[in-house]
Amino acid sequence: DDCVLTPVTPAELGAGDADALGQAAEVLKSAKAPVALLGMMASRPGTAESIRAFLKQTGIPAVSTFQGGGVVSKDMTGQFGGRVGLFGNQPGDRLLAQADTVITFGYDPIEYDESLWNAGNDRPVIHVDGVPSDIDRNYRPAVEIVANIGAAANALSALLAEHAVPPNQLVADVRAELDGIKNRGVSEDPFPVHPLRLIEEMRKIMTPGTTVALDMGSFHIWNARYLHAFRPNQIMVTNGQQTLGVAMPWTIAVTLARPDDTVISVSGDGGFHFSSQELETAVRLGCNFTHIVWRDGHYNMFQFQEQLKYGRDSGVSFGPIDNVAFAKAHGATGLAVENTQGIAATLAKAINTPGPTIVEIPVDYSHNQELAQQLLADQIV
Amino acid sequence: DDCVLTPVTPAELGAGDADALGQAAEVLKSAKAPVALLGMMASRPGTAESIRAFLKQTGIPAVSTFQGGGVVSKDMTGQFGGRVGLFGNQPGDRLLAQADTVITFGYDPIEYDESLWNAGNDRPVIHVDGVPSDIDRNYRPAVEIVANIGAAANALSALLAEHAVPPNQLVADVRAELDGIKNRGVSEDPFPVHPLRLIEEMRKIMTPGTTVALDMGSFHIWNARYLHAFRPNQIMVTNGQQTLGVAMPWTIAVTLARPDDTVISVSGDGGFHFSSQELETAVRLGCNFTHIVWRDGHYNMFQFQEQLKYGRDSGVSFGPIDNVAFAKAHGATGLAVENTQGIAATLAKAINTPGPTIVEIPVDYSHNQELAQQLLADQIV
Amino acid sequence: DDCVLTPVTPAELGAGDADALGQAAEVLKSAKAPVALLGMMASRPGTAESIRAFLKQTGIPAVSTFQGGGVVSKDMTGQFGGRVGLFGNQPGDRLLAQADTVITFGYDPIEYDESLWNAGNDRPVIHVDGVPSDIDRNYRPAVEIVANIGAAANALSALLAEHAVPPNQLVADVRAELDGIKNRGVSEDPFPVHPLRLIEEMRKIMTPGTTVALDMGSFHIWNARYLHAFRPNQIMVTNGQQTLGVAMPWTIAVTLARPDDTVISVSGDGGFHFSSQELETAVRLGCNFTHIVWRDGHYNMFQFQEQLKYGRDSGVSFGPIDNVAFAKAHGATGLAVENTQGIAATLAKAINTPGPTIVEIPVDYSHNQELAQQLLADQIV
Amino acid sequence: DDCVLTPVTPAELGAGDADALGQAAEVLKSAKAPVALLGMMASRPGTAESIRAFLKQTGIPAVSTFQGGGVVSKDMTGQFGGRVGLFGNQPGDRLLAQADTVITFGYDPIEYDESLWNAGNDRPVIHVDGVPSDIDRNYRPAVEIVANIGAAANALSALLAEHAVPPNQLVADVRAELDGIKNRGVSEDPFPVHPLRLIEEMRKIMTPGTTVALDMGSFHIWNARYLHAFRPNQIMVTNGQQTLGVAMPWTIAVTLARPDDTVISVSGDGGFHFSSQELETAVRLGCNFTHIVWRDGHYNMFQFQEQLKYGRDSGVSFGPIDNVAFAKAHGATGLAVENTQGIAATLAKAINTPGPTIVEIPVDYSHNQELAQQLLADQIV
Repeated sequence: DDCVLTPVTPAELGAGDADALGQAAEVLKSAKAPVALLGMMASRPGTAESIRAFLKQTGIPAVSTFQGGGVVSKDMTGQFGGRVGLFGNQPGDRLLAQADTVITFGYDPIEYDESLWNAGNDRPVIHVDGVPSDIDRNYRPAVEIVANIGAAANALSALLAEHAVPPNQLVADVRAELDGIKNRGVSEDPFPVHPLRLIEEMRKIMTPGTTVALDMGSFHIWNARYLHAFRPNQIMVTNGQQTLGVAMPWTIAVTLARPDDTVISVSGDGGFHFSSQELETAVRLGCNFTHIVWRDGHYNMFQFQEQLKYGRDSGVSFGPIDNVAFAKAHGATGLAVENTQGIAATLAKAINTPGPTIVEIPVDYSHNQELAQQLLADQIV
Repeated sequence: DDCVLTPVTPAELGAGDADALGQAAEVLKSAKAPVALLGMMASRPGTAESIRAFLKQTGIPAVSTFQGGGVVSKDMTGQFGGRVGLFGNQPGDRLLAQADTVITFGYDPIEYDESLWNAGNDRPVIHVDGVPSDIDRNYRPAVEIVANIGAAANALSALLAEHAVPPNQLVADVRAELDGIKNRGVSEDPFPVHPLRLIEEMRKIMTPGTTVALDMGSFHIWNARYLHAFRPNQIMVTNGQQTLGVAMPWTIAVTLARPDDTVISVSGDGGFHFSSQELETAVRLGCNFTHIVWRDGHYNMFQFQEQLKYGRDSGVSFGPIDNVAFAKAHGATGLAVENTQGIAATLAKAINTPGPTIVEIPVDYSHNQELAQQLLADQIV
Repeated sequence: DDCVLTPVTPAELGAGDADALGQAAEVLKSAKAPVALLGMMASRPGTAESIRAFLKQTGIPAVSTFQGGGVVSKDMTGQFGGRVGLFGNQPGDRLLAQADTVITFGYDPIEYDESLWNAGNDRPVIHVDGVPSDIDRNYRPAVEIVANIGAAANALSALLAEHAVPPNQLVADVRAELDGIKNRGVSEDPFPVHPLRLIEEMRKIMTPGTTVALDMGSFHIWNARYLHAFRPNQIMVTNGQQTLGVAMPWTIAVTLARPDDTVISVSGDGGFHFSSQELETAVRLGCNFTHIVWRDGHYNMFQFQEQLKYGRDSGVSFGPIDNVAFAKAHGATGLAVENTQGIAATLAKAINTPGPTIVEIPVDYSHNQELAQQLLADQIV
Repeated sequence: DDCVLTPVTPAELGAGDADALGQAAEVLKSAKAPVALLGMMASRPGTAESIRAFLKQTGIPAVSTFQGGGVVSKDMTGQFGGRVGLFGNQPGDRLLAQADTVITFGYDPIEYDESLWNAGNDRPVIHVDGVPSDIDRNYRPAVEIVANIGAAANALSALLAEHAVPPNQLVADVRAELDGIKNRGVSEDPFPVHPLRLIEEMRKIMTPGTTVALDMGSFHIWNARYLHAFRPNQIMVTNGQQTLGVAMPWTIAVTLARPDDTVISVSGDGGFHFSSQELETAVRLGCNFTHIVWRDGHYNMFQFQEQLKYGRDSGVSFGPIDNVAFAKAHGATGLAVENTQGIAATLAKAINTPGPTIVEIPVDYSHNQELAQQLLADQIV
């Protein structure tokens, strides 16, 4: 038939320009404290494995953007400085700040503004991506490798086969900070729930077969920073566009695209009702997922920034809406968490309940202004 | 303060060009069967009164667009051929078709495409509006009066003071047809409810102090055609844009702008959930209104047109959603109608319930293909 | 034929809202020093006659924008304060500044920015136009008459039939200044020619049957300010868009639209070559006009403003191009003026030569910075 | 200084994906009659040399688009089927049509619509370019090599080191046709001049140090098809946009960018006056070039196509303009050719004259409809 077009397979780039690869290897060889910044396109199956091998062989420590999580495997945690982005105040930011050379893999400036982590552009940057870098005074790479990212990582591994990167003492400090944040989550028992405790509860239910879709909001910052992932593209993050209400529609799509995965989505209560009518779709299609609503009755991401900027808030309160009843009105399951100790059991029940299940958890956002503040060790740890 | 701007009062046009008014009067004097077509801008306080006086004095029969309802008063019903629009198959369309001269007041082509009621442009048309007519081969006025519509109507009344328009025998036929449609509504008892019965129930609760806001959908066609109104701008209709989901937000605004009115809005169940989150707003603001949902589980306006065009439908079924439970989840009142005889009492209860109240009424849309078919006397009467 | 559309006659507005006309009359009656500002739409046949009659009857003095010239007749010169615009430094600006009430006829802000002549909006303004006023903090009319401008002027004349406006002593001063400028033109004999002398030469060749089309440039400011006109739409001015190169194409059109007129266009030498290829069109169509090129070898309007702002100029010099040879290369007539005394004879010869004739006149722009400076009596007079 | 940005060196792609290169080599090995289509991006210094080496080694015959000229060197002419484009009726089009495999280098569909040379897409195509192919039903490559074009050509040369492509008998036929066209040019003596004679005269003055810039027009088709070039980017052609008037501005830029070259531009008389004012710029900057105007008094490219389509022409005649006088009016040199025998001497004089020189040559366009007709051997040869 004239109207049938067979699918197009995108053309693959190769390993990149040989001269540029050679220059990149030379730059890395002369670096005292190189750091890898892993962006969204690094966290893709196939690509991530090559980057892992490169990091393992060279020993270069890495941080990732929110969307670049899942590249570093569990056994390499000692080399990973965590996630960075948005406010530039994370433990990994110290590592990035003190690097004398940065190699980015699959990084897009929309994920983390160059001016926040590379202001002045005063050290060599190696850009490895499928597209050339955007022109910006804070990000003018010394070397650009426009290539298939995985193939380029393999080529760099080969060029650096004989080279050992000097050990970076700062990594252990940064890891200790990250562990401190994690431990704080374990021990926070009050109800409504502390965000770090919710992250800890999320960690417990995540397996290699879990996919998580995050909405946007202040809940998102906690997850994007601290919810671990060891599989490429395991946590779906909307950065750049920051589309409020994306999580449940995304989750419906994940149930269709990854039918064997355990699918979990998370939103704030404000973002949930930006697209909550899609619960009808999910019920009608028989989608199997757990959607967690962090509830505080406010558009909190606006609220805490309004308070920081103006000393008061305006137009950010709403509800209450009974989300359990809301779920039932659509023929879905609704579960409410009533104390901190009950979170784990309720989440387990939700995951084992067929069809879409909404789990509402009251959250204590009283310390959210910390999210935007300059990190001080004693504030979070 | 430099930043305070006092409100701007829009400049009013006068009665229009004296020559054009004189020509219009001459055209009307020589007409054997003139008809007035009343558009949206005719149905405004002040303006409507002048047009009413013009029609009363001259005896010219009138039809209106969906948005032009409420101009003709109850005592002038004998002169009114009902509403026309969209499919061009209403009783009033016969009156309009047989007119030898048409005078339009405040009519915009978006309300009712010229090609549907004036194809060929083969009779004189007098255009009275605040803006010149759009250029279209099916609407090229013999005379244009660009003016304050009410002032122009007054000037025409004065110019035609001595003139009596010949009686139009067709008006009585058209009125009989419209009465037949009304009577059918009275006697339709089955449940789910016949649309004409719902119109009849709506008629019963409408008073001079009622404002009605209609959403878009097939329910809307029944209302736009047959729900009477004797007050300018009493029924809010979205035509042209046909914005799905407009009714409840509109209603919230009406409760603020006309605090003494009884406010009723109506939507289909599909359109309701295009903006149903605004129920949270209504509850929070303490708005007092009754929102009626005609429920059939389909996007019926697409459904019946798909069936007419393709012989089947696709992508138009949804739900079920328990709208009574939905209302309660938001802190609003939800009422369900369970038999035809109970409609009146339920609506009365809703109107007397403070805050927003959702009333869900199952409707029988099995005859909706008639809405688009060429009118045959025995089909509807 | 289905494809033939008969021409559309635009709908005319009437005399405007009776209340607004009444208010305007009251405002004018209580004014001690009212001034009329005549804009582009005032200078139209039919309209201009009604405004003339209004001014004559009421004695209100007038100024006009550059595009509003030609409304005031020669016998009413004693009531006319000349043209204003662009830099806000003309004799007529004093008249406008000291007015306690302003009535504008057919004025559009693009002709003369409100902030330049009505900053603060601290006196009543009456707006008479075919469209409502634009919203601007410096132009918020006390009364707006949206109407057929001529009909509104007639209505105001009737309402003010018994009223005599107080005499305005300032008009005579302003007239004396304008006469001084004119007299200076008469006596400036140096070569290259002083701009005011060129204006004087233009005045001599203008008759009631002349149409003049002006290009944009610094030459244009001299003409727009001081070249008199006593017929509506006699001098075509591009303001707002200020299209460089418009004059010769405009002139070609004028020869087609006003075949009995003597047609003269004027441009600078820079603007001339923005569209000088159209000379081929003019020759081919046998158009009969005289195009005068004021020659100084610079984009002078940029040059003098660059010098005022930066103390130097850049990118504004060009040529020389031999425009007489240029004209002949196209088959047109080219004439060069070689001394000031010869201007009149050369222009007479050009007007009497069939086909397009280019007349190049060297001009002395050494005093052009004055154009933008605040007017001081001794500078120009 | 904060505001100084150092220049950005574009990132280079490498040789491309190894798998894709391997597949391409296999496809070429199994081809009986492969042909290379050389596009614009093939004709760049560095790139062209690698493609030349590839063609020389493999013996694959080539054709080029209008913009892809200059890749094949003089000693390889026996392998070159000439240029193709626009009307799809050139000798080389037969070679392209009978290919069982096509490899494109640096080809963009805007240069030569896929539907004209690859309708049905029924043979393998290998796409070698810096960007992926556009999706089109007539151009769906079997293999895409997105790479540095020269590096990819080198890699393909290496992969095909042992492979000999079968000889293609058609190339000699095509060469004979092209030689016939060239010989016809040599022997066409009438005045006004036959276009092929003008091409022959152009050939004589071209050296390795010549750059030619072509305007758009029917003159352009003759040059784009038949004016040889053996140096990358030697002939500048505007295809796609087909900007009328581009030649002289382009030429001014070439005199600045390649100061040691002999610079020649060519336009029709219509296109010349789309930007002829720039002659002032060229004189002022002291640019040294020869601009040849093919003169026939018409927008001939429209004229002959109007005649082919409607049997008459409209709005395409202009002038006469004396371009020699025009040049002198600007202070440039103008030369007119008065007989065919004098062309060579006049061009030689122009090239040796400092500053810009305009050479006007009357041309006989009576056979231009042939340009669009299907090629028949006896028509042109």
